[in-house]
Amino acid sequence: MAYEPTPEDKFSFGLWTVGWRAVDPFGEATRPPLDAVEVVRKLAELGAWGVSFHDDDLIPFGSDDTERERRISRFRAALDETGLVVPMATTNLFTHAVFKDGALTNNDRDIRRFALRKVMRNLDLAAELGASTYVLWGGREGAETDAAKDMGTALDRYREGVDTLAQYVREQGYDIRLALEPKPNEPRGDIFLPTVGHALAFISTLEHADMVGVNPEVGHEQMAGLNFVHGIGQAMWQGKLFHIDLNGQRGPRYDQDLIFGHGDLLSAFFLVDLLEHGVGASSAGGLRGASGAGGRGGYDGPRHFDYKPLRTEDIDGVWASAAANMRSYLLLAERARNFRSDPEVKEALAASRAPELATPTLAPGETVADLRADRGAYEDFDPEAAAARGYGYARLSQLALEHLIDAPHPT
Amino acid sequence: MAYEPTPEDKFSFGLWTVGWRAVDPFGEATRPPLDAVEVVRKLAELGAWGVSFHDDDLIPFGSDDTERERRISRFRAALDETGLVVPMATTNLFTHAVFKDGALTNNDRDIRRFALRKVMRNLDLAAELGASTYVLWGGREGAETDAAKDMGTALDRYREGVDTLAQYVREQGYDIRLALEPKPNEPRGDIFLPTVGHALAFISTLEHADMVGVNPEVGHEQMAGLNFVHGIGQAMWQGKLFHIDLNGQRGPRYDQDLIFGHGDLLSAFFLVDLLEHGVGASSAGGLRGASGAGGRGGYDGPRHFDYKPLRTEDIDGVWASAAANMRSYLLLAERARNFRSDPEVKEALAASRAPELATPTLAPGETVADLRADRGAYEDFDPEAAAARGYGYARLSQLALEHLIDAPHPT
Amino acid sequence: MAYEPTPEDKFSFGLWTVGWRAVDPFGEATRPPLDAVEVVRKLAELGAWGVSFHDDDLIPFGSDDTERERRISRFRAALDETGLVVPMATTNLFTHAVFKDGALTNNDRDIRRFALRKVMRNLDLAAELGASTYVLWGGREGAETDAAKDMGTALDRYREGVDTLAQYVREQGYDIRLALEPKPNEPRGDIFLPTVGHALAFISTLEHADMVGVNPEVGHEQMAGLNFVHGIGQAMWQGKLFHIDLNGQRGPRYDQDLIFGHGDLLSAFFLVDLLEHGVGASSAGGLRGASGAGGRGGYDGPRHFDYKPLRTEDIDGVWASAAANMRSYLLLAERARNFRSDPEVKEALAASRAPELATPTLAPGETVADLRADRGAYEDFDPEAAAARGYGYARLSQLALEHLIDAPHPT
Amino acid sequence: MAYEPTPEDKFSFGLWTVGWRAVDPFGEATRPPLDAVEVVRKLAELGAWGVSFHDDDLIPFGSDDTERERRISRFRAALDETGLVVPMATTNLFTHAVFKDGALTNNDRDIRRFALRKVMRNLDLAAELGASTYVLWGGREGAETDAAKDMGTALDRYREGVDTLAQYVREQGYDIRLALEPKPNEPRGDIFLPTVGHALAFISTLEHADMVGVNPEVGHEQMAGLNFVHGIGQAMWQGKLFHIDLNGQRGPRYDQDLIFGHGDLLSAFFLVDLLEHGVGASSAGGLRGASGAGGRGGYDGPRHFDYKPLRTEDIDGVWASAAANMRSYLLLAERARNFRSDPEVKEALAASRAPELATPTLAPGETVADLRADRGAYEDFDPEAAAARGYGYARLSQLALEHLIDAPHPT
Repeated sequence: MAYEPTPEDKFSFGLWTVGWRAVDPFGEATRPPLDAVEVVRKLAELGAWGVSFHDDDLIPFGSDDTERERRISRFRAALDETGLVVPMATTNLFTHAVFKDGALTNNDRDIRRFALRKVMRNLDLAAELGASTYVLWGGREGAETDAAKDMGTALDRYREGVDTLAQYVREQGYDIRLALEPKPNEPRGDIFLPTVGHALAFISTLEHADMVGVNPEVGHEQMAGLNFVHGIGQAMWQGKLFHIDLNGQRGPRYDQDLIFGHGDLLSAFFLVDLLEHGVGASSAGGLRGASGAGGRGGYDGPRHFDYKPLRTEDIDGVWASAAANMRSYLLLAERARNFRSDPEVKEALAASRAPELATPTLAPGETVADLRADRGAYEDFDPEAAAARGYGYARLSQLALEHLIDAPHPT
Repeated sequence: MAYEPTPEDKFSFGLWTVGWRAVDPFGEATRPPLDAVEVVRKLAELGAWGVSFHDDDLIPFGSDDTERERRISRFRAALDETGLVVPMATTNLFTHAVFKDGALTNNDRDIRRFALRKVMRNLDLAAELGASTYVLWGGREGAETDAAKDMGTALDRYREGVDTLAQYVREQGYDIRLALEPKPNEPRGDIFLPTVGHALAFISTLEHADMVGVNPEVGHEQMAGLNFVHGIGQAMWQGKLFHIDLNGQRGPRYDQDLIFGHGDLLSAFFLVDLLEHGVGASSAGGLRGASGAGGRGGYDGPRHFDYKPLRTEDIDGVWASAAANMRSYLLLAERARNFRSDPEVKEALAASRAPELATPTLAPGETVADLRADRGAYEDFDPEAAAARGYGYARLSQLALEHLIDAPHPT
Repeated sequence: MAYEPTPEDKFSFGLWTVGWRAVDPFGEATRPPLDAVEVVRKLAELGAWGVSFHDDDLIPFGSDDTERERRISRFRAALDETGLVVPMATTNLFTHAVFKDGALTNNDRDIRRFALRKVMRNLDLAAELGASTYVLWGGREGAETDAAKDMGTALDRYREGVDTLAQYVREQGYDIRLALEPKPNEPRGDIFLPTVGHALAFISTLEHADMVGVNPEVGHEQMAGLNFVHGIGQAMWQGKLFHIDLNGQRGPRYDQDLIFGHGDLLSAFFLVDLLEHGVGASSAGGLRGASGAGGRGGYDGPRHFDYKPLRTEDIDGVWASAAANMRSYLLLAERARNFRSDPEVKEALAASRAPELATPTLAPGETVADLRADRGAYEDFDPEAAAARGYGYARLSQLALEHLIDAPHPT
Repeated sequence: MAYEPTPEDKFSFGLWTVGWRAVDPFGEATRPPLDAVEVVRKLAELGAWGVSFHDDDLIPFGSDDTERERRISRFRAALDETGLVVPMATTNLFTHAVFKDGALTNNDRDIRRFALRKVMRNLDLAAELGASTYVLWGGREGAETDAAKDMGTALDRYREGVDTLAQYVREQGYDIRLALEPKPNEPRGDIFLPTVGHALAFISTLEHADMVGVNPEVGHEQMAGLNFVHGIGQAMWQGKLFHIDLNGQRGPRYDQDLIFGHGDLLSAFFLVDLLEHGVGASSAGGLRGASGAGGRGGYDGPRHFDYKPLRTEDIDGVWASAAANMRSYLLLAERARNFRSDPEVKEALAASRAPELATPTLAPGETVADLRADRGAYEDFDPEAAAARGYGYARLSQLALEHLIDAPHPT
């Protein structure tokens, strides 16, 4: 078993992750800036497959066209040199003070228009560099007091904004899908579309709903105390897992962006299991047709790490942490494979009657009237007998833990 | 100004609220059972308009038909006597041990079939008693370990179950809509459809999506640290606020079911403001057409209190707490009206450019190409100048607080 | 009733509060720097009584002695001109990269020594400016992984550090007490001494325990979901409430530093009630002798606002928010006085048997043997009868809410 | 390597854990009662060393003396038969309605007296059965509204109660220490002494402080989002870890009482590491003298599992879950030993300068004046150079994770 990442693993990193200079709400930078070319070379050396970026990561806000071209050209050369791809790009709509009240939902219409244009400009670059996913994180779309924004009006503008961008992508013929990234709070007191669920619900209202999915981040859902595996499972089930941000978080608190696995380890294990093996492997299919977005074969998009090297680290620690993300993923993937292939696990799943969940509740062709006429379903059903049976989840849970930590089998 | 509730206020209570005997995870009952007839009479006396029930609240699980009819008949007589209506009913799919692994997503197909029949039986009674909303709270649909359930398969069954019930309602010709009630956890470690967002997203996948909305509960969203007003706002914007459960909660912890207002008071104020005044009053409309479910005129359904009288209370405390819910709502509604009608608030909203959010970002008829050609939107836009303007949210937030507590105006 | 703050109200602000330039983890500054002299003048104009500072707020890190003196001199002149006092000062041991692993518990001994000297230097200035409290916030004392620090060794160093500083104060003859400020996390993953409780426990181990108390911050305890009023109550009961940081927070999430009252409003009401009226007013005394630190007469120290004006605000919003803090406090104080003086509240407290809690459980002179011999206490005690009595807390809770919002009395 | 528990491992369980019948706030029992004798036999068979109990677990509330003696006698016989010991006992002061407002801090003085007598009675039995620790969990000492209780008065009564009980133990000559068990909330809205810190602080005020320590529970601290390892570390450092409750929890939510390891697995690993290896192994000593309570040799008390078998389990699942607790602990202990003995870990710790933290900040004999005179400590110190050094925590954190999951070393 090798734990060395290869391009087939589809590991990618944002320029802003290893490049984070460690400014935090109470502290100044602890590390010097990293050149994008250096990042590309080093990520390739470590075995990564892709690199993603915000427009302003690559080209500082306010750069003129010459500087812009120079930077793009150097970046492209580094990609060509290393073979790294750009699977995803996104827009910085949060750092500059102009976005302090949001971008697509800013009260100021001129700022909303500027934001749309800023996204379009980077969509052009994303397309040019071959990105297939474009992420929209509305980190500044929100409020600290409910007096500030009418939710309906804000969602009207949000929808208008996303549909306008989708329309632009369609008109340009770009082979790009949009992915909304939910987050409950920080930097705004409350951010609109706070969870995977709210984003999926919002997407269902879009004119271009088919082009828009989600880019969930481990830590963002866990900041709300939610089960990330459940959220991803629902997104996959709805065929909407277009991209994913992997990292670590220790429950409801500030956004930690720890190394993948360095937060809730059991959840990371089950997440890798889900990404690798897909939802509903045992089921007849249902909604889960969308290719690569979570169907039965699992998720086939980038394994994208959106983490921050600890502020205590120097540059060696930065690269060690980047490597740790990939190694943790590979280790967990191995353990998940062992879990799924263990005959004892299969037996335990059967004992818990898990496979029976794949059998529809109504028989093929059975009507509601048929169900009502089935005395065995109600009048003659013995709830006490059914209640007495255990589900064996303690055993299953322990088996998962032991596979995760590679415990020797008891004999 | 009167704070005496009247039927026009549409206040309703569940039989299980005032009737809660105060068994908790560490304690036995502290109060004797309350007869449903007594509850109806007392609620009417206190000024409530409606009463809701789980099947097993009214008719103990396992009652025979004679007992069932006797209890229904007494209940109906009390309704007739008092004029109380039954706007909503629901099913107990969580107390009996047979539902320990869930109802619609139980691994055991026989239990799933039993659960559907149990719901149908109470749908018949709900229709008979004139209920227009039927709530589905899937409190046992979930898991404590991600090894236990395949999310996709579970959601397949959940969807099958809800669509089957909607089909039944349609076939019977009942004038009833279904409302899903999300909750993140407790009694299961993680419950499927944990937030308003996840429920709305799930609904968008249903065959009978038009018949299904949500019944959000204040405390349930706040258990995930989410902004309830934002969640309700999105549900209203999507035309899906079919019912609401009002109570109080003090952040992420066990489900407290406090008296409405006795948790996050500022949020309760903004919630009442939203329910009374609706979303997007200033907007051109959009999705918000669904009558009474959150359009511009506000929410016109029941103000339903789903709370638990503290375990320390005797029967006098129970009725005092029931009255307190209604009084808190009326007080907050008055303060919200004052807030909305205060010229200083209108001026502060204008100063924050809130009304400008209702203006679409693209001009009427403007195409994406037009936007791209508008140099004022990007090339000639001055972000520094735009960034310098403040939004005045501190002032707005303080004005809201002062209206809530009825502070004398400064002079 | 006047809501204009006066020096008697003892309102104070940190230079860093109104002076916050609104850099956050995802955004650049939105406001220009504020000169300390301007802050002093404006705070005085708004009715504040005091101003506090970190060394680096007043004198940028690395300033030479000339610059240092020039800045101190201008600051002092502004104090003299306005009459503002300096009740508290503190040290910035978190912004510079040198403190990235902490100050008093940094692995690097040289950095620990530098930190002690930095504190001592500002203690001299604090004494010179008349401060009576010196706050120690160990925001960087902590870790992101439990592999990083041995807790016992870290606490050894923490104790050594605080005792050394107390020793210095004592040797210099300064009339200053030290106050530790707890916080659970942010900027470190987990901060040592995370709550008021942990800090009080740590203080009990100090050589100079008598000179050290706590400076709790509303939001810090609420980030852990803890009841701030209970924490303050315990600190007062232990005679250790040396200073307090007032602000607002919306539960477990990033440190919001909202305006006081703009978070959990009910808790803010009970906090003001506690600060104004003290703990154990009805009790015989016990530990609560420490003057001004929470005895029966209440807390007589500064009402210090440690908040951040929202990032969306311009300078007008900054001053509006500063004023809002004081006005909220005065309004809540008025409502708390009304609550305490309302005969109905007194009657409700009596009905809940609250005054009986002040009667010791053992009678005067009663021994353990006496208690054991009292058959009425056990053998003849009727638990069912005692269990039947209600406590009337629902009524009390609603009375508090209604006094907070100044509801008209029902008649 | 064997993972079969032996008495040397000192594993103990409460009667109420495996005996939990799975009543929860929304559900009835799913399992029949378990006889105490059966529990003792089965625990012994599984390799446990001890069993603990609440008075009412063994002897139902209200039993007469004959029944009491009969039950004690059967229990004792089972202990004798199996060799199981009783290391700890405690009192049920929460189930019966009489304790709905608390026991030691109940407003009702008669109830407080009854509670003291109930504890004393079970202290006698605890002593008789050889228990050396007596736990006090004040689960009902608290409030849902801050209007209900004066904190100072409540703490007066709490102190009086604990000191009275300690006095009783002393007078009787029992070889028993008391251990307070903190919890932030549930079943009360807010419980007094919510964290390890608050309990340690309270203990420092007791007359019999030397006889009283803490019994922290994993899940209780994690319900407040606190780092359990830090809390235990502080308790050990203060020589106050008298007992411990091991289980699992998934962050701020209801009290889950999962199997040990089935919550935050990384934290469980570091906890076992701490219990087995102690705090401050590298330090000169300090406070950490208290034998077995956390000194350099680690904690030598019971490894007590206070968990609840999932409600979905039948009796086989109950025993499987009991075994899983012990097996998880043994596996983690092995991994912790591997971590501590790995030369690479030692090298990484040295690289992070962790050993330097054990060197006092002041040199032996160095005075404050000496430190002030050391120009190298301040005037000539180069903060930029010191700031540039990294701490290597990412590497350490990953090494811990890889030892936990027994990853093959990279070569």
